[in-house]
Amino acid sequence: MRNVHVALDERSYPIHIGSGLLDRCELLRPLAAGRMVAVVTDSHVVDLHAAKVCTALREVAASLVQVVLPAGEANKGFDALNLIFDAMLQARFDRGSLVVAVGGGVVGDMAGFAAAVYQRGIDFVQVPTTLLAQVDSSVGGKTGINHPLGKNMIGAFHQPRSVLIDVDTLQTLPKRELAAGLAEVIKHGAIADAAYFEEVANDLARLQARDPAALTAAIARSCEIKASVVERDEREGGLRAILNFGHTFGHAIEAGMGYGEWLHGEAVGAGMVMATDLSVRLGLIAPDVLQRLRETVARAGLPVAGPNWPAQRYIELMSVDKKAEQGTPKFVLLERLGAARVQKVADEPLVRTLAACCA
Amino acid sequence: MRNVHVALDERSYPIHIGSGLLDRCELLRPLAAGRMVAVVTDSHVVDLHAAKVCTALREVAASLVQVVLPAGEANKGFDALNLIFDAMLQARFDRGSLVVAVGGGVVGDMAGFAAAVYQRGIDFVQVPTTLLAQVDSSVGGKTGINHPLGKNMIGAFHQPRSVLIDVDTLQTLPKRELAAGLAEVIKHGAIADAAYFEEVANDLARLQARDPAALTAAIARSCEIKASVVERDEREGGLRAILNFGHTFGHAIEAGMGYGEWLHGEAVGAGMVMATDLSVRLGLIAPDVLQRLRETVARAGLPVAGPNWPAQRYIELMSVDKKAEQGTPKFVLLERLGAARVQKVADEPLVRTLAACCA
Repeated sequence: MRNVHVALDERSYPIHIGSGLLDRCELLRPLAAGRMVAVVTDSHVVDLHAAKVCTALREVAASLVQVVLPAGEANKGFDALNLIFDAMLQARFDRGSLVVAVGGGVVGDMAGFAAAVYQRGIDFVQVPTTLLAQVDSSVGGKTGINHPLGKNMIGAFHQPRSVLIDVDTLQTLPKRELAAGLAEVIKHGAIADAAYFEEVANDLARLQARDPAALTAAIARSCEIKASVVERDEREGGLRAILNFGHTFGHAIEAGMGYGEWLHGEAVGAGMVMATDLSVRLGLIAPDVLQRLRETVARAGLPVAGPNWPAQRYIELMSVDKKAEQGTPKFVLLERLGAARVQKVADEPLVRTLAACCA
Repeated sequence: MRNVHVALDERSYPIHIGSGLLDRCELLRPLAAGRMVAVVTDSHVVDLHAAKVCTALREVAASLVQVVLPAGEANKGFDALNLIFDAMLQARFDRGSLVVAVGGGVVGDMAGFAAAVYQRGIDFVQVPTTLLAQVDSSVGGKTGINHPLGKNMIGAFHQPRSVLIDVDTLQTLPKRELAAGLAEVIKHGAIADAAYFEEVANDLARLQARDPAALTAAIARSCEIKASVVERDEREGGLRAILNFGHTFGHAIEAGMGYGEWLHGEAVGAGMVMATDLSVRLGLIAPDVLQRLRETVARAGLPVAGPNWPAQRYIELMSVDKKAEQGTPKFVLLERLGAARVQKVADEPLVRTLAACCA
């Protein structure tokens, strides 16, 4: 087992990563002991993983309710959020209650947001069961829901008390979702650690074969990178925005296709290629970095181009991105493999990137 | 003009209290300059007060939208909250935008909560236009909405950047709402400052006549008392709960009647009498304190007894209160006039208080 510590003063927490961690949930039982516990999950993983967590925690909790959300990004809105509130209020959950999120990023974001605003904030724990959630949304405390006019537009910063990552959950993860998770793993290398980028690129086959040791090592390093960024900028005042490499384009693709058509990681895969292409056009990096990144994204099983929309449609969709300032989007660009910066970009190179990277 | 400073580190803010402050909004213009601004108000005060704020801020803001919510506690839910999100997203509000709440407590709580969770948190300013909001909800950063199963069950702590209290807004306030605000003024004296309690009791006629100097002095002292409690316990870990004097009973009355039937201050008026009666039964204070408090509440134009429901109905309603722990409610009791404590109470004295104080 590997442990990563996220150091945020009184909001600090551990991330435990390993194999077999869900079997008796020993690391979670002390947190649940004597408390009212809501296990929030979705229709895809309720039988696979949440049942195990419920059985283990029911033995120690004062009471336990399970909330099963409809699966998928398209359901990440107020209606599903209210299912959590309804269940907690019907069971008379108090401020000492605990929310345990078992599932992918959608479940974690919604359960975390429910915990952030239930009675103005209660504790929660993340048990992410997709690679994407394990390396991304489980670290850093971003929670939220979608609005028809924008992804994650309604939300809160709310740190979990603990994160439990059992790599065994990845054995049953659909291949497409494993690939989507690899997008964020590749991203961490690209923006922060060139050596790690090369390791991941060389290890892709073992990761795709779901080798527990390779997965544990990669997830731990990705969590470390993300934690070190979040520790320096918890509320996204500046630095943290580099974690959005590929996301300005990616969010536009997700919003334009309708949430759920492209997986988030797929949109980020194509978005990283687009952001790297833009970095080349702005003279920040040489074309060989773009080739290396595009080839790695492709081998991970991810798209390397966005939908073939007119540039104006992309620009329109990006103007409502959370990183936009008064309608002007910002882009995370590579300064070299392993280092990123955030800036606004003139229309001309942007339009050329869109023309070059949309199939 | 009087100024009260709320000292909460980087979340500190000023409260300005006086007459004529809304005429040109000079104190707000620097905050709004160059930003996208949403003025959130309700159908009752849009023409009375919000129009003035909009005119003044439109001159300096980058852009300005006005959101008019349906008035009243019964509309303090997700539907009205979404009107704010919809307007901000349609106008492409970014993270540097500003929300200005112009209205009573419902408007302030909803606009504040919208600001707390819009893109995970943007700035907001309170311009409270009811006495209740001026002395209560505008200080301390509690924001939120109601759920059919409980008042303010969904919310966040989110401090405003500034609070502007123009006592002239009270000239048009319905008499019943002025009385409701006096409930919180009386409360502040009862829990924290016996001399202030007596001043308010002796000054009731001037306050009811809406004398600007008397109102400015009372609002400033109430804000000082609330600020000093909030400064010591921003997130309601303990001490802050004394501000809920009268509220455990009061919330039960509001929920049981259906939100909006009794004004919040009316429920708190009766609730304070009930909590004081309970304090007498528990041997904490002498009966003359109860008499003095009941008489003052009555002279303020507030009810001194709750609805005539069976004790079990009250206990049921109170078990879901946010201050309840695993279904057991807590009560704020008087130790003497000017000092309060929070504790659980046995059923027997509680049932006797309910029998004695419900008409």
